[in-house]
This record gives sequence, structure tokens and C-alpha cells, in this order.
Amino acid sequence: MNYIRKNIQRMAAYMPGEQPRSGEGTRLIKLNTNENPYPPSPKVVEALRNALDSRLRLYPDPQATALREKLAARHGFAAGQILVGNGCDDILNLCVRAFCDAGAKLAYFWPSYSLYPVLADIQDAAKVELPLDDEFQFEAHPSLLHRLDGVKLVFITQPNAPSGVWLQRVELQRVIEETDGVVVIDEAYVDFAAENCLDFVREYDNVLVARSFSKSFALAGMRVGWVVGPTELIGALDKVKDSYNVNRLSQLAAEAALDDWPYFESTVKKVCATRTRVATALEGLGVFVYPSQANFLFARPPSGLAAKRWVDELRARKILVRWWDADRIRDFARVSIGTDEEMDKFLEATRQFLSPQGRGDRR
Amino acid sequence: MNYIRKNIQRMAAYMPGEQPRSGEGTRLIKLNTNENPYPPSPKVVEALRNALDSRLRLYPDPQATALREKLAARHGFAAGQILVGNGCDDILNLCVRAFCDAGAKLAYFWPSYSLYPVLADIQDAAKVELPLDDEFQFEAHPSLLHRLDGVKLVFITQPNAPSGVWLQRVELQRVIEETDGVVVIDEAYVDFAAENCLDFVREYDNVLVARSFSKSFALAGMRVGWVVGPTELIGALDKVKDSYNVNRLSQLAAEAALDDWPYFESTVKKVCATRTRVATALEGLGVFVYPSQANFLFARPPSGLAAKRWVDELRARKILVRWWDADRIRDFARVSIGTDEEMDKFLEATRQFLSPQGRGDRR
Repeated sequence: MNYIRKNIQRMAAYMPGEQPRSGEGTRLIKLNTNENPYPPSPKVVEALRNALDSRLRLYPDPQATALREKLAARHGFAAGQILVGNGCDDILNLCVRAFCDAGAKLAYFWPSYSLYPVLADIQDAAKVELPLDDEFQFEAHPSLLHRLDGVKLVFITQPNAPSGVWLQRVELQRVIEETDGVVVIDEAYVDFAAENCLDFVREYDNVLVARSFSKSFALAGMRVGWVVGPTELIGALDKVKDSYNVNRLSQLAAEAALDDWPYFESTVKKVCATRTRVATALEGLGVFVYPSQANFLFARPPSGLAAKRWVDELRARKILVRWWDADRIRDFARVSIGTDEEMDKFLEATRQFLSPQGRGDRR
Repeated sequence: MNYIRKNIQRMAAYMPGEQPRSGEGTRLIKLNTNENPYPPSPKVVEALRNALDSRLRLYPDPQATALREKLAARHGFAAGQILVGNGCDDILNLCVRAFCDAGAKLAYFWPSYSLYPVLADIQDAAKVELPLDDEFQFEAHPSLLHRLDGVKLVFITQPNAPSGVWLQRVELQRVIEETDGVVVIDEAYVDFAAENCLDFVREYDNVLVARSFSKSFALAGMRVGWVVGPTELIGALDKVKDSYNVNRLSQLAAEAALDDWPYFESTVKKVCATRTRVATALEGLGVFVYPSQANFLFARPPSGLAAKRWVDELRARKILVRWWDADRIRDFARVSIGTDEEMDKFLEATRQFLSPQGRGDRR
């Protein structure tokens, strides 16, 4: 007797990047899961400190009302158009459950966030890949748009991961207009970009935009994501979510982070400046780097050198970056943007790896 | 064009109990959602205070390793038999997704936790009710066991909610043995009971036991639940869960709560003593009370008096209790056990409601 659903037995689980346990973690330079290298606002810490009392015994606000009101005011929507999740992954999962029956078609650009096919598998949905071109851009050719026939849900990461590339808005609009289903624009990294797609929510009735507090607000440890869209779609997500999906402290942390907008802007600016500097330095070393609008770089070492060797070399020097043994992306490493000091160590290690002597020494 | 799955359109959402916003909340006696009236251990607050720093920017341990190891050691299991969730509701939801296809049968005792049919609806599963008798006990008659044919998942609350009644273990064993699917014993309230069913996990290969830190550990605001069972079933839940489903602070809070076992035992003992005293007092007032093994009482006012009137009367006196307008339970109010002082106010308000003058005054 097997108790487990067949699709769950068959599927491979999502593999998150390595999260070192506390002891080891402090000795590593962690550039592998796109965390913010700067701490959250001091006002976040203060808000949390003031909340550490007997109220922990009480259930949180199931609707995260105060946080939704702050997000609505900040971005110019109604609070009823917004839903808060236990991280952006919670939001993506709720979208699958609300809009995509078992057997229905779920589409996503590829390569992209490797959680999308996993979420499709859990729901037993039919996966539809929309391949990106060699520039990791999407070109809305009829041959590709045709794949959208009957699709119930499309996931688009903007800027895309792991490439960091900003997708052309006009191409995304073609996808939105050709889709009979819901299009979720996953803007987890958008605060590091020059533009965003929130206006599509105002323009189309089938678009949701999802955001995260994990990266730009430096709250990966607290798990807060949110989504904005038409109230009818938000209402469906609300039916599907766990009542108390976002705990008390996480709600407060996100509220306090929003209240300190200058701090948010200054850390984002620092990360973007470091990104530009590191991209230029890598190019100077002969490393190819895609133009990134996110807080990471997708980088390919000079021809003849395997990305995996570079990644292993960095690991030996206690620098973690991300690598996937998968088609189209195995020649690259994804490098999160750390502090300037961390990135200098990363660049120095890369320089040594690329120098003939450096490589020789390791053999 | 409707974007939302038909089963989601049709279904009614789960209705959590009223959670007053902070302003009003402080003026109310909140006996409506089974929170612990005592704060979490001071060691929890201390552990959280020590964690409010730049580490908030880092993702949590996706496997909650330290917490699972502590739970395993405490209860005599292997860490691989345990999975931690964002509250016990997260666990229940994962069970539905791992074990129950759309259209498959999902069974539960009734009346019981009203989330079960909602979770079935979200998955588009077929709901199978196993009715409890007039004592809110389950009797494993062949006529009822027959309903278990082909069932993939059974939810049992032990002790049951909203009755608080301890279900006979031998009857549950009949259900487990008659079921070809997985049986989840939801022990959210079991720390207030004299017994538990963890031994069923050791005895059967189709049993999971789910627990919560919300009630007995006074951490409803932090959202931590866990489940123990055969590693094969736990592995399936692990595939389905969000990678980072439990945030950093919630993991630490639960660990610290486990580390202060004497505090846990002392608050549970206080709640149980108050429960006995209040049950006796209510019976003295002619109110019928089911024997409760949980941190609440399911109480019916003397004949001729509607429970709804009692509940409204209490609300007017700023005392919240829970009432459902549903078959078999609308004659009852569910009253969470508060502090002795809170329960004295509840008893006094009830006494006035029941006295002929008291009722007369209100008309």
C-alpha cells in the first residue's frame, strides 16, 4: 500500500541554496542565496524588541491589516488588492492552488526560478516551458505564443533569475494579452531594477505582481512576501491561504521596514553601486556577465574554464556562490552582491583562479 | 473569462475566531480562540531578544534542524521522523497535498475542527463525514467504518474540538486499522490531556501525529507546529512544503520553549486546575459541560436559554467566547480557559445572565 500521491512520489523536491548552520556560517562569505549583505533597518530591530512580550501568546492578525494598508498607501493601491504571504514562495504556491487545476497547463519562462516546475508538480499540473533566447530575453514569436493556448497560469520573474536580465515590457505584454489565464509577475528582485511592472496590474484584469521583503528589505529570515492584483483574484488567494500564515513579528518587521524608506533606498543604492563595480571588474578579468537588474550577477568564466571549477575553488576559499548542473546554465555561476569588502575577496579569489599560476597551484 | 478554479469559487473560506486589533484587544477578555492566558517562558523572550540583529537578513534553516533534534530527543523519535510547519494548519494542509488527489476521499470526525472540510475543498477532494454520537464520542460501528472504504486521508482531533472530549483510543485504533490511507491525529490540545497517541506512530505505518506550539507553549503569535510519523510519509510532506516555511525567530522561540520544560508544565497545570474549577462552577449554575481534556470548555446553558444569547451577553460585557451557527453545536458556546481572574469575571457575567433578574434587566 503506498500512501503518497503518484505525482508527489515522482517529483523531485526544490533544492534551496546551502544555508550554513550558525557556527560555520560566520566564517563563510555567503553569496549564494541573494540575501542583502546589509542588516535590516534599526527601526525593524526596535519594533521587534518592543513586541517581545506576552502578546506572543496571541494569534496574529489573519489579514495583516496594518501591513496591507501601509503597502497600499506606498504603492497606490487599495488594501483589498493586496495579500501578504509567508514569503513570496507562499504567494506563488497560493496562485497555483487558486488558478490551476490538476492537469491544467502552467507556463513559465525557462531558465528561470526552479521552484515553478516544482509547484506545478505538486499540483499535478502540466508544465509548459517558454524558452528564453541566447540573451535570456523572451521574444514573443507566434511559435512560442502558441504554447500559451489554454494555459491557466504563467509565472514570469522580472528581472529574471538566475540571469538578472530585465525582460522587455512589450514582450511581457504580448504574453499577458495572449494568455486566457492569470499572469503572475514575480518581482522578488525588482527593487534593484530601474523599472517595475506594477502598472500592468492597473491595465490588465489577469495580472498579479508578487514582491518580497527578503532581498531589498533584508528580511529573508522573517518570511514576508505580498501580492497585488484585482480584488477578485486576491479574494481567491485569501480563501486558499492558511488563516494565520504570517506571524506577529514578521508583520511588525515588514511594517517597520516600510516606515524607514530612506534606509531601504540607501542600502539598495549601495548594492546597485557594488553590482556595477563588480560587473566591470569581472569583465576586466575576461568573465562574461549578463547585464543585471537584480542583486546578483550571472557570470561565465573565460572559455575553457568550467564554471563548476570556479565555484569549487571559491568554496575552498570559504566563498559560497550558486551553481546548477542544468542545461543552458551549467556554464555560469550566480554571484549575489555582498558588501564591498566581501566582493573584493570574491574578486581576488577569482583573479587567482583565473591566473595561470593560480590554477596551476590548485592542481 | 473566469480565472479561478471552480472548486475555489464554490467553497466557503475558513472563518477564524475574532482577533481584535491591538487597541480594542487590551480591553477585552479573550476566551474565543484557545490561546494560553499565560505568556511564553521568559527564556523565549530572552532567546528572541538575542536574535534581533543582522542575522534577520539571512534565510532560516529550511529543515529547522535544531528544533527537530530537540523535539526528537524530547519525545523519543528520530529527527528524520519529524517535520516542522508554519503552525499546525500548515502541517494539515501539507498532508492533504501529499496524500489526497483531487476527487479522492478525505474523512474527518464531525463535529470537529472546521478547517478540515475547507482543506478538502481547496484540494477538490471528496468529503466524508464520520459523525460523532451524542456524547461526541466515536463509536466504530461497521455502518460508520464502511465509510472509510477507499479513503486516502483521515483527520482526527484528539482531544476533539470544539467538544474537548477525549476520544477512546480503542475506537481510533479501529479507524486506523480499517483505513487504507493515512490517519492524521491532530493533537493540538493534547498537552492539556492525561494521555496522548504518540505510541500509534510507533505501532502503525499509516499514522501521523500533529502538534502545535500555539496553545500549551503560548506561542500562537509565532506559528509553529510539527508532525511526527514514518520517515517515508515525512519525506513526502517535506517535498510539498515551502523550503523556508518557518522563519528564524519562530524556530528559536520553539527551541527555547522546549528548553524550559518546567515552565511549560507549570502553566499547563494552572490551566487544567482552572478548567476543573470553572467546569464545576458552571455545573453548579445548571450549565451542561462536556468533560474536557483541552484548554476550553464546551458548554450549554440551561434549557430554554439560547447559547447565542449567552454569547451576546458576554460580548456586551467585553468577554469573547466562540459560537457557531451550525447543526449539532449551535446550542453550545466554546469557552477558552483564561486566568483565574478572567474566569471569575466570566463566571460572574454568566451568573448574572442566568439569574431571572439579570435576564430581565437586559430586556
